[in-house]
Amino acid sequence: MASSSSRSAPGVRVVDPDRRDRIVDACLDVIAESGVAGTSARRIAAAAGVPLGSITYYFDGMDAIIHAALERFSHEVSDGFVARLGAADDREGVVQALVDTIEHQVFGSVRELVLTHELYTLAAREPRYRTLTNAWMRRSRAALAAHVDDDTARMLDALIEGLTIHRALDTEPAPAGLAERAVRALMAAG
Amino acid sequence: MASSSSRSAPGVRVVDPDRRDRIVDACLDVIAESGVAGTSARRIAAAAGVPLGSITYYFDGMDAIIHAALERFSHEVSDGFVARLGAADDREGVVQALVDTIEHQVFGSVRELVLTHELYTLAAREPRYRTLTNAWMRRSRAALAAHVDDDTARMLDALIEGLTIHRALDTEPAPAGLAERAVRALMAAG
Repeated sequence: MASSSSRSAPGVRVVDPDRRDRIVDACLDVIAESGVAGTSARRIAAAAGVPLGSITYYFDGMDAIIHAALERFSHEVSDGFVARLGAADDREGVVQALVDTIEHQVFGSVRELVLTHELYTLAAREPRYRTLTNAWMRRSRAALAAHVDDDTARMLDALIEGLTIHRALDTEPAPAGLAERAVRALMAAG
Repeated sequence: MASSSSRSAPGVRVVDPDRRDRIVDACLDVIAESGVAGTSARRIAAAAGVPLGSITYYFDGMDAIIHAALERFSHEVSDGFVARLGAADDREGVVQALVDTIEHQVFGSVRELVLTHELYTLAAREPRYRTLTNAWMRRSRAALAAHVDDDTARMLDALIEGLTIHRALDTEPAPAGLAERAVRALMAAG
């Protein structure tokens, strides 16, 4: 999707090969700061330190850059999840990796929380963003399914989602050990 | 919160006692249609069929009306949940009420899905919206805690959140029976 939204412009020599990447990163910063609705080419260009014209050179409109940015974000988050699960070499390691994800990794920052819900809000309205959330879920479930059956992978993925959202949107701390108890209950049923 | 954001205007006779209510409902319609960022007093007034001046008569600014609207929305959703759980008179009835909530009630419409994520995005940034999400969770957990212990209530509340979000943001249907299996696994552990 990212590559399909870049313009191939034969004959134009690219003097700054990282520029497209910097624009996508800057777009994530602007969304985190001002929301999708407050994101403009001008703001992204300022945040990336590039001329305004290079936004239109690399992207066919604001939706293309926002889509590329949120796709990158979803991969950053799931790469971390896949790596943590990949490092688990037995069932106990999986439990600890999932508890660690719930309690420390997901929504480690307001930035991640905001970007996730900005993406979910878009996905609620627009199928092309649901393609991103579906792909994200497929990556998470595949990483889980290396350790548990497919249905248990779905249940655990949903549990992680719900517990992390509730931790982030609550004003009171969650009871110690709650995440571990819930993870073990679903894994025992699998 | 809703009443603290209304202006008391002594000496002004209120000729349309439902007007404030209609404005709050219209605000929800506008948020569902255009997002929080696209919500303006002008649009709300048009949707409510009231003069623009009555928006500023009842509310101290856009944030007050958006807060009142999303508070109302959170109560509408949790009233339904509390009623369904209240109708359950044994453990089996609770399982069925929760499965029904996951599979049919929550996010029955794009409107609910969008409004929920619009609220969560605000709550991610602003403590005063986190007060709404916290109160919403407290109502849900209290309804669950009439049937199970407090920790299990929290786990089930998170599971419902995660499963409903994943059903809504997926492009493929969830396996039949998955919600029931997950609910039973957490209840058995409680």
